[in-house]
Amino acid sequence: MSPTETYSPGLEGVVAGETAVSTLTGGLSYRGYPVVELVKKCDFLEVAYLLLHGDLPDPAADEAFRDRLASTTLPAAMSNWLEQIPRDAVPMDVVRLGIDRLALHDPETQETGREATLRKSERLLAQVPLLIGALAAHRHKRDVFARPALGLTGNLLAMSLGREPTTEEQKAFDLSLILYAEHEFNASTFTARVVTSTEADLHSAVSAAIGALKGPLHGGANERAMDVIRAAGAPAGADAWLKGALARKDKIMGFGHRVYKAGDVRAGILKPYSHEAMIRAGHQDLEETSEIIEKGMEREKNLFANVDWPAGRLYFAIGLDVPLYTPFFVAARVTGWCAHVLEQQAKNRIIRPKSLYIGHAQRPVK
Amino acid sequence: MSPTETYSPGLEGVVAGETAVSTLTGGLSYRGYPVVELVKKCDFLEVAYLLLHGDLPDPAADEAFRDRLASTTLPAAMSNWLEQIPRDAVPMDVVRLGIDRLALHDPETQETGREATLRKSERLLAQVPLLIGALAAHRHKRDVFARPALGLTGNLLAMSLGREPTTEEQKAFDLSLILYAEHEFNASTFTARVVTSTEADLHSAVSAAIGALKGPLHGGANERAMDVIRAAGAPAGADAWLKGALARKDKIMGFGHRVYKAGDVRAGILKPYSHEAMIRAGHQDLEETSEIIEKGMEREKNLFANVDWPAGRLYFAIGLDVPLYTPFFVAARVTGWCAHVLEQQAKNRIIRPKSLYIGHAQRPVK
Repeated sequence: MSPTETYSPGLEGVVAGETAVSTLTGGLSYRGYPVVELVKKCDFLEVAYLLLHGDLPDPAADEAFRDRLASTTLPAAMSNWLEQIPRDAVPMDVVRLGIDRLALHDPETQETGREATLRKSERLLAQVPLLIGALAAHRHKRDVFARPALGLTGNLLAMSLGREPTTEEQKAFDLSLILYAEHEFNASTFTARVVTSTEADLHSAVSAAIGALKGPLHGGANERAMDVIRAAGAPAGADAWLKGALARKDKIMGFGHRVYKAGDVRAGILKPYSHEAMIRAGHQDLEETSEIIEKGMEREKNLFANVDWPAGRLYFAIGLDVPLYTPFFVAARVTGWCAHVLEQQAKNRIIRPKSLYIGHAQRPVK
Repeated sequence: MSPTETYSPGLEGVVAGETAVSTLTGGLSYRGYPVVELVKKCDFLEVAYLLLHGDLPDPAADEAFRDRLASTTLPAAMSNWLEQIPRDAVPMDVVRLGIDRLALHDPETQETGREATLRKSERLLAQVPLLIGALAAHRHKRDVFARPALGLTGNLLAMSLGREPTTEEQKAFDLSLILYAEHEFNASTFTARVVTSTEADLHSAVSAAIGALKGPLHGGANERAMDVIRAAGAPAGADAWLKGALARKDKIMGFGHRVYKAGDVRAGILKPYSHEAMIRAGHQDLEETSEIIEKGMEREKNLFANVDWPAGRLYFAIGLDVPLYTPFFVAARVTGWCAHVLEQQAKNRIIRPKSLYIGHAQRPVK
C-alpha cells in the first residue's frame, strides 16, 4: 500500500455490490415498483412479500403468507424472557437481545440455505412485532394488549399503544412501515451483508443490523426529530432557535441524507399523514414550528427533511412511546435486511476491504 | 448510476478507511511493533493494553490495568443469565447474547465519548472470558472452575478446561490470543466500524462483530480446521483424501486469506507451539496428516495455512471443547474491535456505500 493512496471516506459514492432489491434511481422503487405507487395500492405485508419473494403476491400466496405470519409465535422457552430486564432499558438494546434469544430457539438458526433463510425471514417478520409488543407492556407494567385481528401492523400498533388504534392511525402507521422497509445499501443493510458474507446465519446478520440502525445518524434519528421540534418551541421563536442551533453547529436530526441531495421522496409521501395526525391530536403549534424548521433548513443549509422527520411526528401524534420509534423501524426494515441477506448468500464474496495505514512506523519492542 | 459501473466484489483491494492500529505491510505489526517480537517479549494483556491505549504500558500502568481487569465482574443481575439457555446452544450465539445482556447492565452503555468507551472496552475485555467460563461450565453441567491467580488468559483456559492448565498450555494459549487480537480491516472489525459510524455504542459494535466472526469464512474457520484433519484420517491416505476433496471442490478450511497471498505470518509463529502440543498429547499421526495437507494445499492450490490452521490444532491438543474455539477468538479480538471503534469515533463519517442496481426495470403496480 502506498501512503498516498486515496479513498472515499465513509465509502461515499463507492459501489460495494449489486442488488435487485431496490434502487433510488427514478425515485425509489422496490423490485421495480415505484414506492409512490406501492403506498397507494398495497399494504405493508404485500410489500414485505414483494421484498422477500421478489414479486407481489397473488391472492392465494397473499393469504397463505398472512396465515403463516399469524400462526407464528414466540417460542415457549421465551415466555419470561423479559423478567430480568430493567424496565427502563433502551428498547433497541432489548429488541437485539430478543433476536439473540430467538436465535437460540429457532429450529433452523444455523442453516444458511435459501429456503431455510426464507422461512426464518418470515418468522422474524412475525416475531419482531411480538418482541416489541411484549417490551411495550413490560415498560409500562401492563399485560400485552394484543389485537391479532388487526393484522401484523395493526396488532403491533395496538400492542405498542395499549389501546385500540383508529382506522386512520392504522393506515398511516402501516404506510410509514412501507417507507421504512427497504433502502438499498444503507448502513444497517450493509452491516447485514458484511456479516452474511462470512457465511454467518440470518439471526447474526439481523442482530448486527439492529446495532447499526440504533445509531442517531441512522434509524435513531426518528427518536430525535421530536426533540428538535420541542426544543425549538413555539412558532414565534422557532426560526431564531434554528439560527442559534446552526450557529452552535448543533446537528439537526431528520435532515439531509447521504444519497438524497434534493429531498427524500419518502418524506414527501409521509408528510400529509403526519400533518393530519398532528392536527387531529391538537398539535397545530408544533406543526407550525416543524414547518418553520423545514423551510429554515432548506434556506440556511440546503438540507431537506428525510423520512425520519415526518415519521417522528406521526408516531408522536399517535401517542407512541418515543424509545419505540426505532424498534418500529426494525419491524419494517427486517424485510429489507432479509432480502439483502438472501441476495448476498446467492452470490457471495466475503466483504473484506483494505485500510490505509497511518500509524507508527515499525519500532522495536524494548 | 450507470449500469456499466464497475466495482470490486467483496470490496477486495478497496481502501475503506485509515487506521493506526495495525498494518500487514512488513509482516503484521500492532501500533508499529512487529507481532513476531511482541509474542517473544509480551503477554496478551500487554498487547491488549497496547491496542487499546496506543503504546505498551510502563510497569505502573501495567499493574493498574491488570488490577482493573481483575476486579471486573459480571453484573449481579446476570447471576442466572444462562438458566434458560439450552446446554447445546451454539456458543457464539450465547456469547453474543451475553454481550447484549451486559449492554443492559453497563452503567455507560449509551455513552460514545472516548473515555467512557475506553472504560467499557476494558470491562468487555475482562467480562468476555467470564461469559465463556460460565458457558463452559453450563455446557458440562459443572461449577465454574475459576483460577483468577493465573491472570486473564490463564483463568480463561482453566475455566474452559475445568482443570488446572499446565505452564506450557498457558503460554501457548496466551500467545495464540496475541495472534488473534487484531488484523486491520477484517470482516468483523469492518462490521464494528460500520456500526460505530452510525454513532451507535460500543456494545452494539462488538455484538455485531461477533455475528460476523461466527461465519466459517472468518473466525468460524478454526472450529473447522480439525474437522479437515480428522476427515483426512491416517497419514497414508491423507494425500489421496485431499485430492478427492479438491476434485469435489470442497472448501478446505484453514487455508488461504484475502490479504495474505504467500502465507499468514501468524500461522508460522503459532505452528511450533501447536506441533509441540499435539506431540505432547500423543497425536503424532494427526500431525503427519496435517503436514501432508499443508504441503498438498500449497502444491495443488498455491494456498497457505492461515492462523486458524495451527490454532485449531493447538486448542484440540489442549483438550478444549471445539465450539469454544471461536469464542476464544472473540476474547482476543475484542481488543482490536474496541481499538477500531475508538478510532472510528475519533474521526467519523457514516459508512454508507452505494449499490449497482441490477433488478427489474420500473413497472406499474396493477
